[in-house]
Amino acid sequence: MNSRDALRTGKEHLDSLRDGRVVYVGDEKIDDVTRHPAFREAAKTVASIYDMKADPANRDAMTFEEDGGRYSIYYLRARTRDDLQRRMVGHRMIADMTHGLFGRSPDHVASFVTGMAMKLDELKAPHGHAENLLAYYKHIRATDAYVVYAVVPPQAARNPEFYTRQNLPTPTLRVVREDADGVVISGMKILATGAVFANEIWIGNVIPLAPDQKTEAITCAIPCNAAGLSLWSRKPLSLEGKTEFDSPLGFRFDETDSMVLCQEVKVPWDKVFVHGDATLSRDIYVKTPSHCFGNHQSTVRYWSKMRLLVGLCSKIAEATGADQVPAVREKLGQMSAVEGAIAGMVNGQINAFESWPEGHACFNRHMVYSALDWCTQNYAKFVDELRELCGGGVFQMPADISVMNDPALANQFTGFFQTPQADAISRMKLFKLAWDLVGSEFAGRHQQYEKFYAGASFIVRNHTFRETDWNALNGIVDRLMASYDYKPMTKARSAP
Amino acid sequence: MNSRDALRTGKEHLDSLRDGRVVYVGDEKIDDVTRHPAFREAAKTVASIYDMKADPANRDAMTFEEDGGRYSIYYLRARTRDDLQRRMVGHRMIADMTHGLFGRSPDHVASFVTGMAMKLDELKAPHGHAENLLAYYKHIRATDAYVVYAVVPPQAARNPEFYTRQNLPTPTLRVVREDADGVVISGMKILATGAVFANEIWIGNVIPLAPDQKTEAITCAIPCNAAGLSLWSRKPLSLEGKTEFDSPLGFRFDETDSMVLCQEVKVPWDKVFVHGDATLSRDIYVKTPSHCFGNHQSTVRYWSKMRLLVGLCSKIAEATGADQVPAVREKLGQMSAVEGAIAGMVNGQINAFESWPEGHACFNRHMVYSALDWCTQNYAKFVDELRELCGGGVFQMPADISVMNDPALANQFTGFFQTPQADAISRMKLFKLAWDLVGSEFAGRHQQYEKFYAGASFIVRNHTFRETDWNALNGIVDRLMASYDYKPMTKARSAP
Amino acid sequence: MNSRDALRTGKEHLDSLRDGRVVYVGDEKIDDVTRHPAFREAAKTVASIYDMKADPANRDAMTFEEDGGRYSIYYLRARTRDDLQRRMVGHRMIADMTHGLFGRSPDHVASFVTGMAMKLDELKAPHGHAENLLAYYKHIRATDAYVVYAVVPPQAARNPEFYTRQNLPTPTLRVVREDADGVVISGMKILATGAVFANEIWIGNVIPLAPDQKTEAITCAIPCNAAGLSLWSRKPLSLEGKTEFDSPLGFRFDETDSMVLCQEVKVPWDKVFVHGDATLSRDIYVKTPSHCFGNHQSTVRYWSKMRLLVGLCSKIAEATGADQVPAVREKLGQMSAVEGAIAGMVNGQINAFESWPEGHACFNRHMVYSALDWCTQNYAKFVDELRELCGGGVFQMPADISVMNDPALANQFTGFFQTPQADAISRMKLFKLAWDLVGSEFAGRHQQYEKFYAGASFIVRNHTFRETDWNALNGIVDRLMASYDYKPMTKARSAP
Amino acid sequence: MNSRDALRTGKEHLDSLRDGRVVYVGDEKIDDVTRHPAFREAAKTVASIYDMKADPANRDAMTFEEDGGRYSIYYLRARTRDDLQRRMVGHRMIADMTHGLFGRSPDHVASFVTGMAMKLDELKAPHGHAENLLAYYKHIRATDAYVVYAVVPPQAARNPEFYTRQNLPTPTLRVVREDADGVVISGMKILATGAVFANEIWIGNVIPLAPDQKTEAITCAIPCNAAGLSLWSRKPLSLEGKTEFDSPLGFRFDETDSMVLCQEVKVPWDKVFVHGDATLSRDIYVKTPSHCFGNHQSTVRYWSKMRLLVGLCSKIAEATGADQVPAVREKLGQMSAVEGAIAGMVNGQINAFESWPEGHACFNRHMVYSALDWCTQNYAKFVDELRELCGGGVFQMPADISVMNDPALANQFTGFFQTPQADAISRMKLFKLAWDLVGSEFAGRHQQYEKFYAGASFIVRNHTFRETDWNALNGIVDRLMASYDYKPMTKARSAP
Repeated sequence: MNSRDALRTGKEHLDSLRDGRVVYVGDEKIDDVTRHPAFREAAKTVASIYDMKADPANRDAMTFEEDGGRYSIYYLRARTRDDLQRRMVGHRMIADMTHGLFGRSPDHVASFVTGMAMKLDELKAPHGHAENLLAYYKHIRATDAYVVYAVVPPQAARNPEFYTRQNLPTPTLRVVREDADGVVISGMKILATGAVFANEIWIGNVIPLAPDQKTEAITCAIPCNAAGLSLWSRKPLSLEGKTEFDSPLGFRFDETDSMVLCQEVKVPWDKVFVHGDATLSRDIYVKTPSHCFGNHQSTVRYWSKMRLLVGLCSKIAEATGADQVPAVREKLGQMSAVEGAIAGMVNGQINAFESWPEGHACFNRHMVYSALDWCTQNYAKFVDELRELCGGGVFQMPADISVMNDPALANQFTGFFQTPQADAISRMKLFKLAWDLVGSEFAGRHQQYEKFYAGASFIVRNHTFRETDWNALNGIVDRLMASYDYKPMTKARSAP
Repeated sequence: MNSRDALRTGKEHLDSLRDGRVVYVGDEKIDDVTRHPAFREAAKTVASIYDMKADPANRDAMTFEEDGGRYSIYYLRARTRDDLQRRMVGHRMIADMTHGLFGRSPDHVASFVTGMAMKLDELKAPHGHAENLLAYYKHIRATDAYVVYAVVPPQAARNPEFYTRQNLPTPTLRVVREDADGVVISGMKILATGAVFANEIWIGNVIPLAPDQKTEAITCAIPCNAAGLSLWSRKPLSLEGKTEFDSPLGFRFDETDSMVLCQEVKVPWDKVFVHGDATLSRDIYVKTPSHCFGNHQSTVRYWSKMRLLVGLCSKIAEATGADQVPAVREKLGQMSAVEGAIAGMVNGQINAFESWPEGHACFNRHMVYSALDWCTQNYAKFVDELRELCGGGVFQMPADISVMNDPALANQFTGFFQTPQADAISRMKLFKLAWDLVGSEFAGRHQQYEKFYAGASFIVRNHTFRETDWNALNGIVDRLMASYDYKPMTKARSAP
Repeated sequence: MNSRDALRTGKEHLDSLRDGRVVYVGDEKIDDVTRHPAFREAAKTVASIYDMKADPANRDAMTFEEDGGRYSIYYLRARTRDDLQRRMVGHRMIADMTHGLFGRSPDHVASFVTGMAMKLDELKAPHGHAENLLAYYKHIRATDAYVVYAVVPPQAARNPEFYTRQNLPTPTLRVVREDADGVVISGMKILATGAVFANEIWIGNVIPLAPDQKTEAITCAIPCNAAGLSLWSRKPLSLEGKTEFDSPLGFRFDETDSMVLCQEVKVPWDKVFVHGDATLSRDIYVKTPSHCFGNHQSTVRYWSKMRLLVGLCSKIAEATGADQVPAVREKLGQMSAVEGAIAGMVNGQINAFESWPEGHACFNRHMVYSALDWCTQNYAKFVDELRELCGGGVFQMPADISVMNDPALANQFTGFFQTPQADAISRMKLFKLAWDLVGSEFAGRHQQYEKFYAGASFIVRNHTFRETDWNALNGIVDRLMASYDYKPMTKARSAP
Repeated sequence: MNSRDALRTGKEHLDSLRDGRVVYVGDEKIDDVTRHPAFREAAKTVASIYDMKADPANRDAMTFEEDGGRYSIYYLRARTRDDLQRRMVGHRMIADMTHGLFGRSPDHVASFVTGMAMKLDELKAPHGHAENLLAYYKHIRATDAYVVYAVVPPQAARNPEFYTRQNLPTPTLRVVREDADGVVISGMKILATGAVFANEIWIGNVIPLAPDQKTEAITCAIPCNAAGLSLWSRKPLSLEGKTEFDSPLGFRFDETDSMVLCQEVKVPWDKVFVHGDATLSRDIYVKTPSHCFGNHQSTVRYWSKMRLLVGLCSKIAEATGADQVPAVREKLGQMSAVEGAIAGMVNGQINAFESWPEGHACFNRHMVYSALDWCTQNYAKFVDELRELCGGGVFQMPADISVMNDPALANQFTGFFQTPQADAISRMKLFKLAWDLVGSEFAGRHQQYEKFYAGASFIVRNHTFRETDWNALNGIVDRLMASYDYKPMTKARSAP
């Protein structure tokens, strides 16, 4: 890394992960996430993103200069349409590396923080700490840190009386104490995707709190190796003895999801951004470009995913020979239109960008949420189209490629499973790849994930609702209705 | 109109329609489309579009200057992203006047011609006549003419042998003779939407012909009052004694659809653009920006329609009080996302614009067709959402507003039909308006029309298929598969 | 009619409609619904149903004998599966006459009353009057009367305080007075489909009332010519100068919808079934076979409609020649499966019939409501399939068949519009027929109607929810979960 | 087992599987499927079906008597509606044991054979061997054998010229030689679901062959341990170190899918049913009740699956507390209607049963295929509804229940993951169960499987198309159109 550049290499990032963090898979404590089979391949994937960014060949696309430093492009506080375009291209290059399957890549939460840093006056004193936020933005920008977030309470926490009644600790993370140095937090937050590969966790509330939930209204940042913090990983998808050939996507791209459990974790004041104001703790996302910037990244990422999906539709149709059937060609055209739709919706966010105070520029928020709604509602359907094209072919393969180890079986395999379109091994490789997007547990996680990426459907639609100019739309009807009126009838009667 | 400006007023346009054209509604011959009750209201609508364009207040948005003249914006041969943006805004202002319900407005075929004039070398001699096309472009631009088209053969015409065998005239329009002055055409073309309000009809072939269909491969322009030409209108939607109050949309916005019947219509050579080359007669649309420009207008128009639709969803929910129900608010958010999706897809076409030879700029074609596929596939579904919000309310109204003519009935009506949200007359007005988009025959025509705007689904999807960069998409899969391979297995066996 | 038989002829029924009833179409008062052009054709349709029933050839299918009389089959209080089968066949024969487009035929409310008469003890005294109900059942059975119902309050009536505050009469129908002879009712009820062709209107509440809505909790029957009663018809669909050729379905099958306005209508006590008990006024439908019997008829009727729809899909595909395209044949198979699905769901209601007290038999209620949900949710989709098959063909026809009046036009029409599959007139006839199911206002009314046949979707689903054996379904999960438990882990760790 | 009864016990069945059969998982040869971890749990499931059948308590439901023997109910050649009802109940009891997740249970192919044995004259000599079929039917009935089938060629085999050209063995199974004792077959067939747990494999062709594919037109039965036969299993779903707690469905119900590879397998003549007639080799399924009986079982099985699915929807909604939300209650009503729909469609097949020659009774075939189309088209959608109800809850769980092994973690787990509705372990157990139906690889296999249960959608719809009475449906339209005609117009003109 050039001394002036804040561009971390992959190796540097991997090194940064060996920091004593506490990660559990069930009751197993993971010593080193960069070496444990459940995590090491995805860790390499994260490293490769850093390497790509640091590659001088990508300097123009992936970085920008400001205040004498050179930073990752996703820290750019946009001022023009072109800035927004540069952000989009940066997200796209990162997403393309993982085909959108590693959604909470380093550019995701960084975009939240950057968007927030573009409208600091929303972090209103005394409960908001704008100067801390700005300093934090500059800090992660300078260190090129990987920040993830945990901004939702556990399902378990929706009925606090229940816990009180039973003399149980309430599970939701909250401030339990504060002193001159900072606050102390305890409890659980979900769902810190990517946390095992990250440096910092942003703690906050993207879902509205009740006004009296003041202790829960803490927004802060903690390092992944904070004392008292443990990360409970959901079942890793690459732990099950599968090879890369069997499960090429799950093998590399399991970004992991973790519950964040804090037991008396100390947060110094300068890492506290909101404290004690339930409404403010959420407003900082939606009254600044923060939430919009983060979700723009999501739609760009989805676009990359659709490109892989449509590519697979095409290759599978080719492999089965179905690409010659008119109805299948129409289907391919239809799936290509899916890719074109999200491509259009991403680009539209830029073309119809919004001007913000102090010369800032923001993606068109209504279009961001509209695209997000489309993405979350339709993913299962798009996967189903690829499923349909795969047909029974996914089951007509040996259990795994180990058949090649036995000469007699290998002979049968290469003979019986080849087709005019492809040799046996290539066919199996292609169908295994497709299966990892439609049928494996990795595929299952993605079907669940896309649907709940931004919460339940009503949450996404509340965003859209909020960002709709209802006066304009209602006004269309009002003006139309005002342009005519009923008139006393003079119609001919059917009977005299 | 300024003497230097080519901007027709509404009155000038109406005058231009009294030209002796032959229009039939069933066996009724229409003398003057600007005065006949089946057509006069829609004729006024067309006139109002011309007036809006000619209004000095809209000079910047609706016109451009070139070669010393000032022309309607949709004749602009785009060279920059900004030019494309200007075209879009122009389409949008026209579409907003009719809420997208008058799709084949004057800017539609004009865009086809303009797009074609941006890539003249595709009109290859000897069968193509580039110079005629350019002259025609300049002619309609200068006269601000309203051109529509008829570019599809009648369903009846798909089996020519049948007609030959029975000694019948083949119905499809074709060249029956040519001489020094031009060609003579006879036969039927469909479906000249807007023709009764237009000045010229563009005759052509947007659907591929068989290579030997040389006489059908005629592309030319004829005036609406050409000798030998008759227009057979489908059932007008405003002929049925309804008032504007009953049917406010059908009353004004029935753009009409006509079959074009030619009996020995003479076309001078300078109005012939392609003659005798079946492949070329279609290529001129898809190898130039022509088809893309025309269909961009369609997606802009659809956007306006969605704005009315979503506005109505909101107003109807307000009128029934359902807007307070969380599930209905989610539905409104979802419908707003529909508007945001098409808004995004329109804007995306501009942001991701294509550079063409000779410094021209074109909307992103893949995004145009992707948007078109989305539009055609989903219209009935969107209408169904408004239908759902209307509930039974549309039936809970008197037959018509004539109840107000009878004091006793009027008293009952205004008393029994008012609600906390609205007085009886306003409620009825609103529900009648909504019904004209979901339930009336006008609504039925639009549900049919949007589905077949660009032909059957496979036609739209063939466009998308053609404009897809399959190498790029397949390459994603290829590169991914090339990045790993099977390895001889060393997995632990479950049994020794 | 045999003197012992209670089987009315069509003529007798038409005579019964000339009884001084007050019917308004807007401000026009209709003198004789059997002669007025808005109603006479549908009145003939009703008469033809009566004639079919009275036809000796249909005696076995359409009638049953009990207590020395012979009655319409839909008055049969079922005791066996075979009785239920007979009811179904009877409904089907009636529905087939109108292709399910005249849903509130005489067998509809008669089934409600018959089902109620099978469980009289639910009409609990003092607010319920079981003996009156039984007498009424016998009366309408003996007179073969056509009863319709109005059992929903107007949208306007959901906020009674509003009216009180403004000193306005509350619009909902209620008891305003009672005396020794009976009760007096005033106010509005919706939506009395078929009322203009019926003899009696059943007034009641199928949607739950608030417990304190005691005066609204009136269930009774009034004759259509009751003093003080007026029927306000929604816009008739056959009033608009269309011919039978143009609109063959709307011409015959507009069953009409009317608002019921009562001004001091007197109801004698023996026609009062529930009075003063809000809960009971609804329970009588769902705690007896009443609601189930009525909605069984609806699913049978829908089946007839699907048979017409699928027949039209087939004929239209034949007419365009598309029936030779594999994808279209698949579509026809798919649409046939729609018909088979509702056929199965109707027959299943019989096969899985329920035994009720006192030896009665009832259709399987869960299956009735499940079928109803399927019907209401999917109608617009099924119509859209026919719309798709029609393509642009519906617009490629002259305005109306009057072209045949002019020899020159007739010559062009028969020549240019014929195809290898059909002559021009037959094609036009077929497309006009299809249009009346997909695009006309009659079609629009049916798309709205099927969706709200039984109220909003949540109402239908509440019925299904109520009739679900949740203990059984939850028990499946409970037993499965009880059959295994977690065991202390002995899994191999991935690292020592 | 009683000496007169042909009712195998579970233990007897497991014993029968240790017969030297050759089964591969990749390159691993499985010694004993009843003991290998990949198969033993599912083998127990099969055994439990046999035990349930043999249980005297189920004697009436699960068996019937004929010719002095007592047999499994699914061998009953139905003669009455009641017989069909008994078959249905038998299938249902078997399906309920596996919640429809083990579709190719012993009653599946047995039903194919039984249906065929009801119309023996379709196995026309000389290529059909009716007497062999009858003997085989009696043989499997008497031995209570578990028969599965492989009746589709491998995807690889659709272009025979390709193989010839390259001098490769054609992969499709075919007769390579015949002699006095029988035929010799070689090649591959797919997809023998359940084969590793079965006794016999039925080899045949349910998809039409080309007329000249005479050697492929072999229909016969071979034992699973036939010399020269090997079964290649697809990846077992229970091999991956998961516990029953993690994956309760996959653990027990992985019915397995195998490719059938034959190398010179000898088939004695008495096990040959069709030989040398391509058309006949398929007709035996669709011209007898065979295919209908087999697919009836499939729809019954699907019903059981829907009962588990809807039960899970209910339990999950209860566990998250969402069951109190009106919109979720509506959703539960909707899902219950899904269960009611398939319940109705299964029962309808019985109520509308068909009479066949020689006194036999058959399920209504059109309804069977209509139900099948509904099942295959909608499964992914139904799963998506459960996915939606699960929300993010499926990710908010520790990796596995091993957390309970560590007291400190166990303490956190039981404290932080409990809710007012359930303790932590029960919640995790429920969400893991749901995940095994929506997200695991087992779930993925079922989403693929239901879609292709009966082949691609056009195959299912061709069955429906074939079994449709198009004359009846077209006749509806024909008669309607014949009932009116156009009349010379006398309509008032709008202009004189």
